[in-house]
Amino acid sequence: MTDQAIAPTRSGGRAARRAMRQATDISMLPGIHNKIPTCEIMTGSQVERIDAASMDILENVGVVFRDDIALADWRKAGAKVVGERVYLDRGLVRGLIATIPARFTYLARDPNKSLALGGRDAMFVPMTGAPYLRDLDDIRRNPTLDDLAMFHKLAHMMPALHSSAHHIVEPYDHPISQRHLRITYSSMKYSDKTFMGMTTSPKNAEDVIDMCRILFGSDTVEGHPVVTGNCNGNSPLVWDETMLGAMRAFCRANQPVLCSPFVLGGANTPASVAASVAQLNAEALSALAYTQVIRKGCPAIYGHYLSSVSMKSGAPMAGTPEISLMNFMIGQMARHYDVPWRTSNTLGGAKTFDAQAGYESATTLSSVMHAGANYIWHSAGWNEAGMHCSVAKFIVDAEQCAMAHRMAQGPNFDDFDEALAAVPDVGPGGHYLGHPHTQDNFQTAFFMPELFDNNSIEQWQADGAKEITERALIHARKLLSEYQEPHLDLAKDEELRAYISRRETEIPASDELNQSY
Amino acid sequence: MTDQAIAPTRSGGRAARRAMRQATDISMLPGIHNKIPTCEIMTGSQVERIDAASMDILENVGVVFRDDIALADWRKAGAKVVGERVYLDRGLVRGLIATIPARFTYLARDPNKSLALGGRDAMFVPMTGAPYLRDLDDIRRNPTLDDLAMFHKLAHMMPALHSSAHHIVEPYDHPISQRHLRITYSSMKYSDKTFMGMTTSPKNAEDVIDMCRILFGSDTVEGHPVVTGNCNGNSPLVWDETMLGAMRAFCRANQPVLCSPFVLGGANTPASVAASVAQLNAEALSALAYTQVIRKGCPAIYGHYLSSVSMKSGAPMAGTPEISLMNFMIGQMARHYDVPWRTSNTLGGAKTFDAQAGYESATTLSSVMHAGANYIWHSAGWNEAGMHCSVAKFIVDAEQCAMAHRMAQGPNFDDFDEALAAVPDVGPGGHYLGHPHTQDNFQTAFFMPELFDNNSIEQWQADGAKEITERALIHARKLLSEYQEPHLDLAKDEELRAYISRRETEIPASDELNQSY
Repeated sequence: MTDQAIAPTRSGGRAARRAMRQATDISMLPGIHNKIPTCEIMTGSQVERIDAASMDILENVGVVFRDDIALADWRKAGAKVVGERVYLDRGLVRGLIATIPARFTYLARDPNKSLALGGRDAMFVPMTGAPYLRDLDDIRRNPTLDDLAMFHKLAHMMPALHSSAHHIVEPYDHPISQRHLRITYSSMKYSDKTFMGMTTSPKNAEDVIDMCRILFGSDTVEGHPVVTGNCNGNSPLVWDETMLGAMRAFCRANQPVLCSPFVLGGANTPASVAASVAQLNAEALSALAYTQVIRKGCPAIYGHYLSSVSMKSGAPMAGTPEISLMNFMIGQMARHYDVPWRTSNTLGGAKTFDAQAGYESATTLSSVMHAGANYIWHSAGWNEAGMHCSVAKFIVDAEQCAMAHRMAQGPNFDDFDEALAAVPDVGPGGHYLGHPHTQDNFQTAFFMPELFDNNSIEQWQADGAKEITERALIHARKLLSEYQEPHLDLAKDEELRAYISRRETEIPASDELNQSY
Repeated sequence: MTDQAIAPTRSGGRAARRAMRQATDISMLPGIHNKIPTCEIMTGSQVERIDAASMDILENVGVVFRDDIALADWRKAGAKVVGERVYLDRGLVRGLIATIPARFTYLARDPNKSLALGGRDAMFVPMTGAPYLRDLDDIRRNPTLDDLAMFHKLAHMMPALHSSAHHIVEPYDHPISQRHLRITYSSMKYSDKTFMGMTTSPKNAEDVIDMCRILFGSDTVEGHPVVTGNCNGNSPLVWDETMLGAMRAFCRANQPVLCSPFVLGGANTPASVAASVAQLNAEALSALAYTQVIRKGCPAIYGHYLSSVSMKSGAPMAGTPEISLMNFMIGQMARHYDVPWRTSNTLGGAKTFDAQAGYESATTLSSVMHAGANYIWHSAGWNEAGMHCSVAKFIVDAEQCAMAHRMAQGPNFDDFDEALAAVPDVGPGGHYLGHPHTQDNFQTAFFMPELFDNNSIEQWQADGAKEITERALIHARKLLSEYQEPHLDLAKDEELRAYISRRETEIPASDELNQSY
């Protein structure tokens, strides 16, 4: 055997090791345990003023529940009901929300990826609901089930994303009436992280719960949160039948609902930050209270969608100072009631992944970290006021989340004395790069973003003068080429697919394809 | 006279009113009074640990002062001096820094633009020192005195910028040996806000002080801060002759110096956030103490330049979690010593004004606001690790500062009850846009960014599908077309120009043009 002959083997070994080194580390980061002090922008008495104003609204203005079952439930619970309007006494509200768990564990298919939620424990969840995507070529177009699967794969692979969410993009190639089944399956199949469930109708929500029972087992679902559902209110002060029905499906199954007033500050709230928060707080409390009417002790999450409206165009705005302030304030209210809190992360209105998108996203990410949010939704991909999910932005946002995750750990003092010992070693005018402590700790001491380019302009030009969009899309393609589907028990997979087949024969395929929920 | 004949007059009046409405409001915002709770990321005992570690460094490792006058000063002040190394006893250091004013008023040429600094009072200062600009056509090239004047005009016109700084860009069309005179004149002439003074040599610093005496009068300069100078340390633990000489020129004239260790975390500090802060803190304290040796009671500012270094390329990184954490921590240390604190704002390494630049800038801006910084330098234009100042980014960063300025005011509860009264008026399912409270308050209740586009994609396409760089450059051109030079007393102007003429005959014109300081 010649040297030449054995070369392939040796080189194969080296190549394999190199490939392993070069393969991206996709290990999910643990849930965020946020050590950043919460930004208490309001005094205690201002918190009390918001609380009192919200309770006044609930007692004297009331909340409309456009749903006969809910109205009957409220009557039975002791509320005053006039027509569709429910007047909620503050004692009743406080009594009801008191049974919402302050924290819970949110199970993932891979038990190592289950998460604590509530208190200082938090998670990043990618955006959902985009009727368009900007794809791997940065082309804006309607999405398909394959595109949705791609985003679920990327969510699976980005370490700081703790969930595959649900309809990150709307799969237009499947009938809308059956779409929830395929979306849920895609979330379950391509990732083993936590996920969300569709709430587009009470029946759809029940399908999601049924599929969760297949995936996790009925006993597990009954005893543990395994899926979250979002229910939007119609501000001001209205909850509709679809949302309330879906809420009942989730609560009855002991699954947490995000009780999310949909606020366009100034359009459906007063033109005042503090008064907008008071109204939003009343709306969230009314739904949180209803979750406990449905099932006492069921987990529930204080939520909202929050933007302010441009007087120039009527368009929603994000990344503005009022959004940051309202996040700080709403965080204080949720803590006041000791209920886990959902907010939104990268909301913004840029049409491309330009600097506007960067400013909006980073401003919001910083604010929600200081605000102490728990369920940090829309954490990757959101652009154009939610009209599209951008693959490039998805990747970069997710890395930004990893950076925020690091920040949330606070400074490390564990090796403080050891690190300080390097100072006299090196002395005035020296340098640390060669010092053993530096060599041992550099990789972990300072975060090195993959998607920021910090090279000289000459190096950057030599590398092809790529702006961040192009670099991110290259990284996304690399990730997808390395994707490995997490093992799903074959029997469960078959049962899920059988369930979908059965339901798709039961549910008439609607004609509408090119339509989003 | 026919209706037609009078039309031009009437229409002229309307046109004038419209023009007035359309002219950009350039009124400077008042200094920031930051109501955001400071982010106390360290416990009290961690603050004590950093303090103790810094004092240990000062006592046992010492600091090199490469300057005979400083060494003699230190000997006289009672420090142990061995060669160039000064060992500073903690009692001596604490005694010296105790006389630094915790806050002062920084005078501007227009007294209405003078600023409080220290405590919760803060200011935004544009970037300085760029050897390149990206100009009004986004072309990257070497700057001239005209380009510098353009940036001083823009700084004058952007409401949230509180200073015209000094050499925002390096004017390469004037000999380096005489450049400081033209830079100082440009700062003074094209804006009546506060400005900075060159510290590129002791003599240059004295020229700046002389020009300030002409502009403000000698008595005013003696009694009040009118100019800030930045002195960088060479980490680890070295101060050089140029910086120390310039420091003496400023301190003797009772003008505040930013005492700024130049930290590349991991390269010239240990690979540890906490230990890096301890070393930086020791360095800043050593210079702050020296300002009081030079002139007891002279104002001084705790400063730093701070980035971490990529192990992949050796390049400085910004917008990273460690930079945010170090900002929080250094803010705590500056408050511990009760000294005003300078940090940097929009540091970052993007080569163009792409999303990377947006993320980096917004992350840093948020962090320094939560950190409670006072003198917030490099707040507009910085890109490519400071290698270029971008006109487009300058404008957008300045608007971001205006948004942060608004956030720092906290929520307004003044009209809370009045705003709440709209809730029963509108009721469930209604809308607020037509309500009188909304009409009266919308413009002020929610910030509407000029440079973010929140329109629909259809409207955006109809408007020419402009990304933020293009929109910002259009806005910059509009501003410059509206620029009006603030009145400068003719006699003072002549005296300043005579001073420059005289000094330019005294100082040999160096050959070097294409070189930055």
